[in-house]
Amino acid sequence: LEEERIHEFREQFLALHAYDRAVFYEKTTPEIRQQIYLYLSPKELAEIFETSEIQEHEYRDYLEEMDTTYAAEMISYMFVDNAVDVLKELNRTQVISYLTLMNEEEAEQIRALLHYEEHTAGSIMTTEFVTIPENSTVRSAMTILKTEAPSAETIYYVFIVNENNRLTGVVSLRDLIIADEDTLIRDIMNDRVMSVLVSDDQEDVARRIQDYNLLAMPVVDFQQHLLGIVTVDDIIDVLDEEASDDYSKLAGVVDIDTTDKNSFAAAKKRAPWLIILLVLGMLTASLIDMFTGTIEKVAILAAFIPLIAGTAGNSGTQALAVAVRGIATRDNEDESRWKLLVREAGTGLITGIICAVFVVALITIWKGEFIIALLVGAAIMVSIFVATLSGSFIPLLMHRLNIDPAVASGPFITTLNDVISILIYLGLATTFIDKLPIS
Amino acid sequence: LEEERIHEFREQFLALHAYDRAVFYEKTTPEIRQQIYLYLSPKELAEIFETSEIQEHEYRDYLEEMDTTYAAEMISYMFVDNAVDVLKELNRTQVISYLTLMNEEEAEQIRALLHYEEHTAGSIMTTEFVTIPENSTVRSAMTILKTEAPSAETIYYVFIVNENNRLTGVVSLRDLIIADEDTLIRDIMNDRVMSVLVSDDQEDVARRIQDYNLLAMPVVDFQQHLLGIVTVDDIIDVLDEEASDDYSKLAGVVDIDTTDKNSFAAAKKRAPWLIILLVLGMLTASLIDMFTGTIEKVAILAAFIPLIAGTAGNSGTQALAVAVRGIATRDNEDESRWKLLVREAGTGLITGIICAVFVVALITIWKGEFIIALLVGAAIMVSIFVATLSGSFIPLLMHRLNIDPAVASGPFITTLNDVISILIYLGLATTFIDKLPIS
Repeated sequence: LEEERIHEFREQFLALHAYDRAVFYEKTTPEIRQQIYLYLSPKELAEIFETSEIQEHEYRDYLEEMDTTYAAEMISYMFVDNAVDVLKELNRTQVISYLTLMNEEEAEQIRALLHYEEHTAGSIMTTEFVTIPENSTVRSAMTILKTEAPSAETIYYVFIVNENNRLTGVVSLRDLIIADEDTLIRDIMNDRVMSVLVSDDQEDVARRIQDYNLLAMPVVDFQQHLLGIVTVDDIIDVLDEEASDDYSKLAGVVDIDTTDKNSFAAAKKRAPWLIILLVLGMLTASLIDMFTGTIEKVAILAAFIPLIAGTAGNSGTQALAVAVRGIATRDNEDESRWKLLVREAGTGLITGIICAVFVVALITIWKGEFIIALLVGAAIMVSIFVATLSGSFIPLLMHRLNIDPAVASGPFITTLNDVISILIYLGLATTFIDKLPIS
Repeated sequence: LEEERIHEFREQFLALHAYDRAVFYEKTTPEIRQQIYLYLSPKELAEIFETSEIQEHEYRDYLEEMDTTYAAEMISYMFVDNAVDVLKELNRTQVISYLTLMNEEEAEQIRALLHYEEHTAGSIMTTEFVTIPENSTVRSAMTILKTEAPSAETIYYVFIVNENNRLTGVVSLRDLIIADEDTLIRDIMNDRVMSVLVSDDQEDVARRIQDYNLLAMPVVDFQQHLLGIVTVDDIIDVLDEEASDDYSKLAGVVDIDTTDKNSFAAAKKRAPWLIILLVLGMLTASLIDMFTGTIEKVAILAAFIPLIAGTAGNSGTQALAVAVRGIATRDNEDESRWKLLVREAGTGLITGIICAVFVVALITIWKGEFIIALLVGAAIMVSIFVATLSGSFIPLLMHRLNIDPAVASGPFITTLNDVISILIYLGLATTFIDKLPIS
């Protein structure tokens, strides 16, 4: 297909959706990509870069394949917010060289956005939106829209500003279309417009767009000056990233990235976590080591150690997950922390009793060891209670101290629960050793 | 505020965004809600129900608070897809009574949608969209849009059908606004329109809307007849639900629902999982029980059991999480399963060797027991390898057998890993018992 038949290739390739073109672009060889650069205009390539889900660190490689002027022109055709995402991956000299090759106005917009901190509303917003002065009519607004439509990222919300460029309202294109042409914008606009600060966290922005079912959210500074907008397609990615993030942390992987094509990269991500847990696990081992006297006498005690530690770990993870997810989705914002802890304590107690009764019955029937069964049951009850409580208390505390609860809590809670549950179990066993069946 | 001052209340309340009204509605007492039913029209209340994130089982309680005719009228004002979500929570008699109270056309639409299976495109689509015949002009299309705008869920995509109501294209409102008024729709429409089948899984629909950055996706039957559309706000909720779901399952909770206001409800969700793990844990306990002879002689062996089982569990969870998330996001769709397994085997081997070397060094330095250290290291290496491999193989197998890999794999993998790792450890110990320092 690629035998120099430029026209046929262009026709077929451009008929594909940009996403499919992007998938092809990424999958193909560098040689074919060189041909693509010859056959496609920078503008057409920009469209591919817009929709692709290219890994951020790969942008640099792709750009280096291209001629510098071609690359600069392509970047200038991208929506500003996406262009900024690409440039953020490059080093300072590269950024400057691309910016000097662009036209002044475009470069200015990009330069302004490059300064916002990561994970803020400013870093995901675009400056390509449509504003209309409050005293225009619907007719003049539609004229402005027609000229701006090709370059704006969304035209489905139009933002209304006063003479000082302060945000005063919003009108949806739907309302504009329904309205009479001579109506003043001021009369149909919604003046209770919702906005976020440029420094707000991107997750907060995403949650608000989700809650209020919006297609775009205006971003302002402290004086209500309209700086940009965040659109719904960007926030889907934010929410997705956030969810994957919490999930990775619960699983004990720094970053779940299934596109790791080799085992070394994957091992590098997973090993550190296992090592941390090994070191902490040594604490548990040392603790058991202190009870070797008891275990020598009643070796069957050892059989239940993994069961008890495992159960404590599982109930701790359950409580942790509920707390972390609750913090992330702000479900429990208006509930007082104390109430949450009291509730979790109750849950731990009930779950502990249920599991204890169950385990006592099971061991008695299975092994016929009632005294051992009682001991294991008591240890399980107390450790589920403690694990549930610590699983919800520690993340809340971390959140209070502004530490990400998802990453920091896991190993602490696991170790704490292991230590406490084993201490209770072997402690009880040592105390009541006279009552136990010496093996 | 609620002292019968209807006008003031209405003015202030209606000025709020529908989401905030919904939050107030849910938080307030049943008595105040009774007043709300008096003060607000069914249409105004419908708007609250649209945006609220009322738990599905609560709809029934709210509807029962209302007068039946009022409730029926309110439901008929909701967008059809949301109305269907509400009605699905009720029993047959209730549904029928509400439907008979509505106007015929509305009831017909709802009845049609009620039949689609849960989690399919059909169950989340709406039938309130705008279609235009292919041979109209832009001008006549805009006229149709103006009349349909108030009742359609989105007017930002207009779907083009031929005389048999088959989907042939799509035009965005943006293109309509830019285009000359006399242009034929056929000439500006995109005829490579993307669509999904009514029976497609809702997660697939969501992923495609996300990948292609769409605001809405048309839903068709096998003959390309246009049946409905799925809008972006619905798919955000689908993706969110899916992510929470995978997360809950990894944590071992049937459903992470932080709005559980009492401990019994939470315990009811968590206890079954703990009980399953307890039963499976008994297998491990029985296994260790077989080695009591060895443990009696070398009690320090018991100290490392939780460490080894824990490490196997952790590396299994890592592999499981990567596999489950990869299946959910289809990241690894075009990679062959064998390649994935070979890669994971590599990762397991490398991680295993790193951790084993580390643990041998640590135990030798800390406890001065080189032979025990070697034994623990060997067990850790083999069990990380096995755990990583089973953590990726089992979910892939489950997926192949059409079982949800997230829910079914957890307990299997944990138990399997516990059993294998302990078998290797105590098996090795028993074999080399002559070399071990008898305590």
